[in-house]
Amino acid sequence: MALIVKKFGGSSVASTEKIMNVAKRVLADKKPEDKIVVVVSAMGDTTDDLISLAEGIDEHPYKAMYSREMDMLLTTGEQVSIALLAMAFQKLGQPAISMTGAMIGMRASSVHTKGRILGVEPKRVHEELNKGNIVVVAGFQGIDKFGDPVTLGRGGSDTSAVAIAGALKADTCEIFTDVDGIYTADPRIVKNSHKMKEITYYEMLEMARLGAGVMQPRSVEMGKFYNIPIHVRSTFTNTNGTIIREDYTMEDRPFEIRGVTHDEKVAKIAVLGVPNQPGIAHTIFSALAGANIDVDMIVQSIRNIEKNITDMVFTIASSDLPEAKKVIDEVVVKLNAVSAVFEEDVAKVSIVGAGMLGSPGIAARMFGALAKANVNIDIISTSEISVSCLIKGSQIKDAVNAIHEEFFPN
Amino acid sequence: MALIVKKFGGSSVASTEKIMNVAKRVLADKKPEDKIVVVVSAMGDTTDDLISLAEGIDEHPYKAMYSREMDMLLTTGEQVSIALLAMAFQKLGQPAISMTGAMIGMRASSVHTKGRILGVEPKRVHEELNKGNIVVVAGFQGIDKFGDPVTLGRGGSDTSAVAIAGALKADTCEIFTDVDGIYTADPRIVKNSHKMKEITYYEMLEMARLGAGVMQPRSVEMGKFYNIPIHVRSTFTNTNGTIIREDYTMEDRPFEIRGVTHDEKVAKIAVLGVPNQPGIAHTIFSALAGANIDVDMIVQSIRNIEKNITDMVFTIASSDLPEAKKVIDEVVVKLNAVSAVFEEDVAKVSIVGAGMLGSPGIAARMFGALAKANVNIDIISTSEISVSCLIKGSQIKDAVNAIHEEFFPN
Repeated sequence: MALIVKKFGGSSVASTEKIMNVAKRVLADKKPEDKIVVVVSAMGDTTDDLISLAEGIDEHPYKAMYSREMDMLLTTGEQVSIALLAMAFQKLGQPAISMTGAMIGMRASSVHTKGRILGVEPKRVHEELNKGNIVVVAGFQGIDKFGDPVTLGRGGSDTSAVAIAGALKADTCEIFTDVDGIYTADPRIVKNSHKMKEITYYEMLEMARLGAGVMQPRSVEMGKFYNIPIHVRSTFTNTNGTIIREDYTMEDRPFEIRGVTHDEKVAKIAVLGVPNQPGIAHTIFSALAGANIDVDMIVQSIRNIEKNITDMVFTIASSDLPEAKKVIDEVVVKLNAVSAVFEEDVAKVSIVGAGMLGSPGIAARMFGALAKANVNIDIISTSEISVSCLIKGSQIKDAVNAIHEEFFPN
Repeated sequence: MALIVKKFGGSSVASTEKIMNVAKRVLADKKPEDKIVVVVSAMGDTTDDLISLAEGIDEHPYKAMYSREMDMLLTTGEQVSIALLAMAFQKLGQPAISMTGAMIGMRASSVHTKGRILGVEPKRVHEELNKGNIVVVAGFQGIDKFGDPVTLGRGGSDTSAVAIAGALKADTCEIFTDVDGIYTADPRIVKNSHKMKEITYYEMLEMARLGAGVMQPRSVEMGKFYNIPIHVRSTFTNTNGTIIREDYTMEDRPFEIRGVTHDEKVAKIAVLGVPNQPGIAHTIFSALAGANIDVDMIVQSIRNIEKNITDMVFTIASSDLPEAKKVIDEVVVKLNAVSAVFEEDVAKVSIVGAGMLGSPGIAARMFGALAKANVNIDIISTSEISVSCLIKGSQIKDAVNAIHEEFFPN
């Protein structure tokens, strides 16, 4: 007997035909004694359609004043999917019951449109599983202390699924998606990248942070918290995907590095000629934090010892650039700096792997691979299990391929 | 200060533009100190669209096995309306909050797709009203003892509104609809019918039962139970409609009768040549009850004393005729009756009014009016406050006009 939580995203349930296919797929994989919980998102474009409706009331429905009502509106999307999927199971002769976020006791913080999961009270889910039902649960939604619906923000359905798996002490949580696992590099860019059998939570978190788009960091954190293996696999094929877990099994020891990731949605900002005195960094980065802008790589360099001025260079998400420009232009005036330069043609390439701890030569090999490919490095930053380089955006494909070839030679 | 519950149906909220209009209408009528609860149905065709989706899973989604999931599906319709209407109020500067059936504690029996209201726990509604919010509530839905959503069946949003008004001890419950009140006869048939200022619950129930389509009997019963005045009025005009209440005020004493109603969705069944022995009626009508078919007018007549056989004639809703034919054909064999005759070209015309109690001449005047109009009477039935005649369906307009002219001469 296994208790398995399976999550299917919006594109997997985009039509009633696809919903029937999900039901058939789940039943084909189910052993008679298995207990199954299926977590689903809203059908295909439903969420966009609901947002369009809201725009009929106010063209800016994401104003904070509307956030509770937007959650009330958007949570209907998953409620439609779960009802239809439960009917699909019933039509195929499999007892099934749908449950909303409120009904499974998915408690969330009262921050509408981006709630955080506080806990799950799965008593009734257990009861329904024990009756022989497949339980179909609405992802992406919880209930706050007032009893109001709250949506969980980006990647919320994955996070729901992992949290439910954790609360149920499930054997595994399967995330069905449009790729068939986690690769050593983006397969669209690196032809001979290969699928990993396993990866640790820690490495997956670092890869997600550094640009691997398959999993949202929050769902991986949730898996780590509950120590639930997360199996990322394809909706369309039956092959095994990649299992995210605490540690490797013996037969799948990692390479020196785990993978190469890249992020093109990066912008570089240089504040030039800042008087070099205490509090400079605080002034710049607290101004950005005040505008809710995350800063990633930071380099401070001595530019001119005689004049005692310095340059402060850092990166942000390119989507934050318009807002950051306003903030930094004010900062330049306030700090009496010389100027600020904003650059969008940049990208970040990174290597990730727990194996590099205690292997000092790894970073050097990465830099060497980039040099051989004629890629200039602008900024370097490191963590315990990763090394990242900021480079010219137009060279990103060459860079990723050169590094992958160095560490995963075919 | 008045506490008013207002209910708007699906056609009043069929688009975001109409939803904005409802919000403006409510605010235009609101005195600053008024507390307002607005109950809404699903937008226009939403319910039909959701049913179409369900038909993508199974072409017969109303099978009993799907009823819980259909309720899960259909309750999303009102949830969309309440979110949008609350946003519309907020856009107009009026604090508002939406609440589902579950959130207002609308407890219902666990009979999916046709739940009955068991009670309302309006604690949070009071709290939100006291904070200055307009509370926007999803009609047509409640929650059962398991915490599952239940829809309330036909006219359910009206019933929700009246039940909420009752639980809140509201001053009045306004039902906004596409007609502007209750008329002495259907204005589409009788040109000089006139709108009533007031009508009692008891008379309204009898008129609804006898064919007046404006209000569903259950919502009137609910009003009577809580003794909440129900104001039936137009969405499109500002004039007063008709108030349904316990008794008349002094200035609006009724005529001898209150109104003329008619019902064309009637079928007549005659079981002919039944052996006249005890248990005959029981056999016929328990067979129909077993098939969930309501019987209305019943006449048993001695046909042939020598052969000791009788005829049993009765009426049912014409929508039940196909099912009734099957049942009655079996009954004819079982009872060794001569034959059964089914007739659809029949209609029922009725007069209703508490004033006819103790006025024996009223029924006679009705029959006289019909005779003058050359309308033959097939069956007569009476209650304390009504008299009904079954006639030929093709003569219904003449009949209604003749009777209306008799009691409300212009």
